[in-house]
Formats: sequence, structure tokens, C-alpha cells
Amino acid sequence: MKIAVLGSGMVGNTIATKLVQLGHQVMMGSRTAKSAAGQEWLCSVGGKAQIGTFADAAALGESVFDCTNGANSLTALRAVGANNLRGKVLINVGNPLDFSKGMPTLTVCNTDSLGEQLQREFPEALVVKALNTVNCEVMVKPSLVPGDHNLFICGNDQGAKAKVNRWLCDWFGWKSENIIDLGDISGARGMEMWMPIWLRLYGKIGHPHFNLRLSIGSK
Amino acid sequence: MKIAVLGSGMVGNTIATKLVQLGHQVMMGSRTAKSAAGQEWLCSVGGKAQIGTFADAAALGESVFDCTNGANSLTALRAVGANNLRGKVLINVGNPLDFSKGMPTLTVCNTDSLGEQLQREFPEALVVKALNTVNCEVMVKPSLVPGDHNLFICGNDQGAKAKVNRWLCDWFGWKSENIIDLGDISGARGMEMWMPIWLRLYGKIGHPHFNLRLSIGSK
Repeated sequence: MKIAVLGSGMVGNTIATKLVQLGHQVMMGSRTAKSAAGQEWLCSVGGKAQIGTFADAAALGESVFDCTNGANSLTALRAVGANNLRGKVLINVGNPLDFSKGMPTLTVCNTDSLGEQLQREFPEALVVKALNTVNCEVMVKPSLVPGDHNLFICGNDQGAKAKVNRWLCDWFGWKSENIIDLGDISGARGMEMWMPIWLRLYGKIGHPHFNLRLSIGSK
Repeated sequence: MKIAVLGSGMVGNTIATKLVQLGHQVMMGSRTAKSAAGQEWLCSVGGKAQIGTFADAAALGESVFDCTNGANSLTALRAVGANNLRGKVLINVGNPLDFSKGMPTLTVCNTDSLGEQLQREFPEALVVKALNTVNCEVMVKPSLVPGDHNLFICGNDQGAKAKVNRWLCDWFGWKSENIIDLGDISGARGMEMWMPIWLRLYGKIGHPHFNLRLSIGSK
């Protein structure tokens, strides 16, 4: 499949590399067409991919992984433009974190979320929030965390969520029954608001290879 | 032990009843000394407890379970007064939820939390945030959820957290190793921000007997 991965940071890198390894036609998008980070990544995958601007990548992609820094995602996606997103599944992976003020906070939360902002800005894109609750290495290799553990997903379009569920399973190794659909895109509020606990746990555990598992009793 | 339980709603009821069953000397505090809900609860435990105002209860208690509705906790605790809380462990159980605007939101979050508000307002109380991430029946009977699952705890005073950890184990049946200390009271931000996911899961699962379990891989 032709896939756009927006963002050349750690998350974009990890996801794009995995997709290249799987044989997909991947273009990594950055702010500039030939960013240093993009070129470095291209070398790391032996040149078996493409790099370009955010818009170049999204124009090529049949689906789009938005792995941009959450605090800048709206700006990055505006650079992509609505035309390049129309009718496509847009997987929003980032968390809108602000690290500039000591203890990290979210730039949007509670009454809104990054996922909702993107869906409002691009009403014809099929925005699915996914993967943001785990570290990027866990995203593409859930077996780094022992046993069954869960991933949340949300979005307004059932078909798009079904596709993302299948991709997460087929490409990254998640079990379909461990992916919990939280409903429409406003479920992104809770998914992004998981970050403060995640960050505390990260500090406490000392590495990011952990996740939560839902345990359900009887009524 | 002499224990104050503030709040005569479902949470206060459940916790106070459990503590009475365990043989503690419990006073349930409400806005008024002889609230209908308080009297009904007193009957339900065969009169083996006391009811009074928030201040009456806290004055009697050696420790205080604040089970008031989170959106009103600050007001309720102001009615208690700093004198009745000085040097006591104050377990803040509630979530500052606003249900008045459709989809529930938090009245405080991200850059602050109810737990922090209480600790700032009553600097000589030993505020510990605990139990707010699970349903009240699960609070006092963790076996309603199968297997191991986790509870978070936070607060500025190590001694107070150690006491609460012991009480949660000895009184309610939690395993000490399943209680995760998230650090100082600002950890309450994340604990309270778990609510949006919890509420979605509640709607999806159809009952509140669920919880999360942390699974940790290797570095």
C-alpha cells in the first residue's frame, strides 16, 4: 500500500521503518522536502522509501499516519491541505503535549482534543485516533509488553476504524480483541488525557515498555 | 479506629458501610446533621454508627475519607475547617466531574487537580488521593474484578501514603504490590484525568466492575 508517514521524529521513524520492512511504499513527510532527519531515516532503510514535504507525502499516501508532534499537528496538517486528505484514513498518533513549563501538560483537553480538532479542520478526512497511549516501540511490537494488553481506538467512521484495526493486527501484531473501540472521535479526549499517568509511570518504571490491560468482572 | 466518612452518596455509603462491618467507629458527615440520606444509611447499618455534619464527622475522625462529590469537595471541606483536618490523613476519593453539559467534563484538570486544590487549601492535612479510578463496589471488594489489577495513590507525605496502603489492604482486600505510588499530590492530575476513558468504558461494558492492570516489559 502507498502510505504517508508525517513526522520524522522518533514515532514517525519507528512506524515508517516498520512499514518499509513490511514492503509498503512509504513516503515520510517533514516540514521541508529534504530534511536532515528525513534523509538520515532514508539511509537507515537503505533508500527503500521516499521523503518529501508533509503535502508530498500525503498526496502519495492512500492512508496517512500522522506521527507529528501533537502540539504541532494542526499546523503540520494545514500544510498538507484538505485536498490531500479527502476520503483518506488519517491515523492521528500524537499527543498534544507541552513540555515547556516543567511538568508536562496538554495543550488541549477535557472539553476538546487533538483528534477532534483535526476532524473538525478536515471534515472529509476519516480521522482515527490510535496508538497514542503506548511508546512507539510498543506500537509496532506489542510483544515487548508481556501478556495481553490493550489499545484504544476512536473515530467517527466505522469503516475507517475497521481498517485501522486490521492494519494494527496485520502489520504491527496487535490482537484484534485487544483493541478497544471507544466510540466517536471525542473518545480522543480520554485517550490523550491518559498521558499524565503514562508519563508518571514512565518516570517510575524507568523505561517505556509498559501498557495497561483491562480486566472486566461480571455485573 | 475512629473514622470520618464525608459524603452520603453512593461512594460514602459503600465505604462507610464496609468500615462499620469491620468494627470501626464511623461517623458519616453530610451538609446537615440529620440528612435524610444519612439517616437512611444509619438504619441500613443497624444504627451501629453515627451521623453528623461534615465538621462533626471530621472532628471525631482520626482519619478522614472524603467521599464527597468531587465537584463540591472544596466547599464541603471548607465547611469542615482546617482545625478538624490538621495532621490527619485525608483520603480524597472523588473526581471533579461536571455532568451538567452533556458529555461529562472535569471542573479542574491538566494544570491542577482536586487533590492539589485540597492540599493547598489545607496545608496541614495529609492529603492522599486514592480509589478514584474504580467504582465504589470495586474499592471495597477488588475481587469483583478478576486477577491482579492496580490502584494508584499519590500524596506529599510518605507516612500517610504508607498508612493508606495498609488500610486499603487490611480493610478492603487490595494487594500492596498492586497499589502504585505515583508520587506527590500532583499525580492526582493523571488519576482524575483517567475519568473520560473510565466513563466511556463504563458505557461500553455496561457495568462498573472493571479496572486496569499494568503490564511491564523489560528495558
